[in-house]
Amino acid sequence: MFDWIAFDADDTLWKNEEEYLHGRQVFLQILADYNINQDALERVDEFEVENIQYYGYGVMSFALSMIELAIELTGERIHPGDIRKLLNLAKAMLTAEVEMFDGVRQLLEEISKKYPLMLITKGDLFHQQRKLEESGLAGFFQAVEVVSDKTPEVYREILERHKIDPQRFIMVGNSLRSDVIPVLKLGAWAIYLSDHLTWSHEDDPLAEISQDRYREVKEISQVLNAVEALEN
Amino acid sequence: MFDWIAFDADDTLWKNEEEYLHGRQVFLQILADYNINQDALERVDEFEVENIQYYGYGVMSFALSMIELAIELTGERIHPGDIRKLLNLAKAMLTAEVEMFDGVRQLLEEISKKYPLMLITKGDLFHQQRKLEESGLAGFFQAVEVVSDKTPEVYREILERHKIDPQRFIMVGNSLRSDVIPVLKLGAWAIYLSDHLTWSHEDDPLAEISQDRYREVKEISQVLNAVEALEN
Repeated sequence: MFDWIAFDADDTLWKNEEEYLHGRQVFLQILADYNINQDALERVDEFEVENIQYYGYGVMSFALSMIELAIELTGERIHPGDIRKLLNLAKAMLTAEVEMFDGVRQLLEEISKKYPLMLITKGDLFHQQRKLEESGLAGFFQAVEVVSDKTPEVYREILERHKIDPQRFIMVGNSLRSDVIPVLKLGAWAIYLSDHLTWSHEDDPLAEISQDRYREVKEISQVLNAVEALEN
Repeated sequence: MFDWIAFDADDTLWKNEEEYLHGRQVFLQILADYNINQDALERVDEFEVENIQYYGYGVMSFALSMIELAIELTGERIHPGDIRKLLNLAKAMLTAEVEMFDGVRQLLEEISKKYPLMLITKGDLFHQQRKLEESGLAGFFQAVEVVSDKTPEVYREILERHKIDPQRFIMVGNSLRSDVIPVLKLGAWAIYLSDHLTWSHEDDPLAEISQDRYREVKEISQVLNAVEALEN
């Protein structure tokens, strides 16, 4: 019934948002020394979203936004040593060990016997490639697509290039905005991981679209069951 | 005789290094206020190369390296307002108008009638996609590959995925290190643009490898003649 199953990577196969939550905490601790507390977390999100037009998504974008915001919020009083701490934080995030969710390898072993698998991940090319390599999961995927955004047009281009009928394609991921809604719009299928963390900016409600081709499970280990349910 | 012709993008189709040269000048001007002149330019290169392991290639990598180096060279005395200038410089570089070399469009129009064309470009995915879109050249390319590095292995993977015989593949570019040497190692052909600027870090001598499948021209407008010469 399906020709391809595609997986998101960050917060679907391995943990990611936890690193950003930690990064925001480090940022808040630094700013606390300047008596800046209120609203700083919201402003981080605001700056990141505003800067996507320049930087796209990823750790470098996050780092550049934090530095800019730290300068702004302190009225240019931030000590350069504290900016250095933010640079070190970025390097630590970029080299952090990849921590996979429980059951990921087993799931991919089983599901790759039945379907060709594709990885479709957003963000910084270099960092995503490093994480995929370190995860030891690269061998499960017949195709890897690192994209700068996950719009219906981006998914359509990928499906066309691989000559995939959307009706025979499932996308699995933790973000309604990035992994579910755009593929449903194309007539494809989606499995949503509701208990995995998502960046708050991506935490959209499921829009007014047909939910026939959509299944929700809590964890990645339940994906094989969900695929089998969709097959029937 | 050839099945595909591939082009590098930065400093092959459009100007790029000029933006970085300007960026380095802005950096030097800022540091001059702290009485730092000597060796600062060399240190920029050194920091960029050292940071490739974290950031890969591109403007964000350049910006993060400049900020780190400015903090280092000033002994943490740099004013946050000056760091803000570096952030603004990065944004200006990321949104700078794409300036193509003379004759690029005409060349691609003619050569695309005879061969399918591929773009193989290194650097930040988001920024490269923006430049390609703005250039109006996207329609000439049957395939676009944004890669995080240009090693023989990376080229081999691209050729295998597109089922291209290296002996029937030409790469055109301005960098001996990135565009010429790795493809010659695979048994493919290369055309080198000797008068186009190259980042000094990439300015390698042509190594001890067979030059049979290699041609040098000064400018992009001479590429069609070079391809025709290789055909005979």
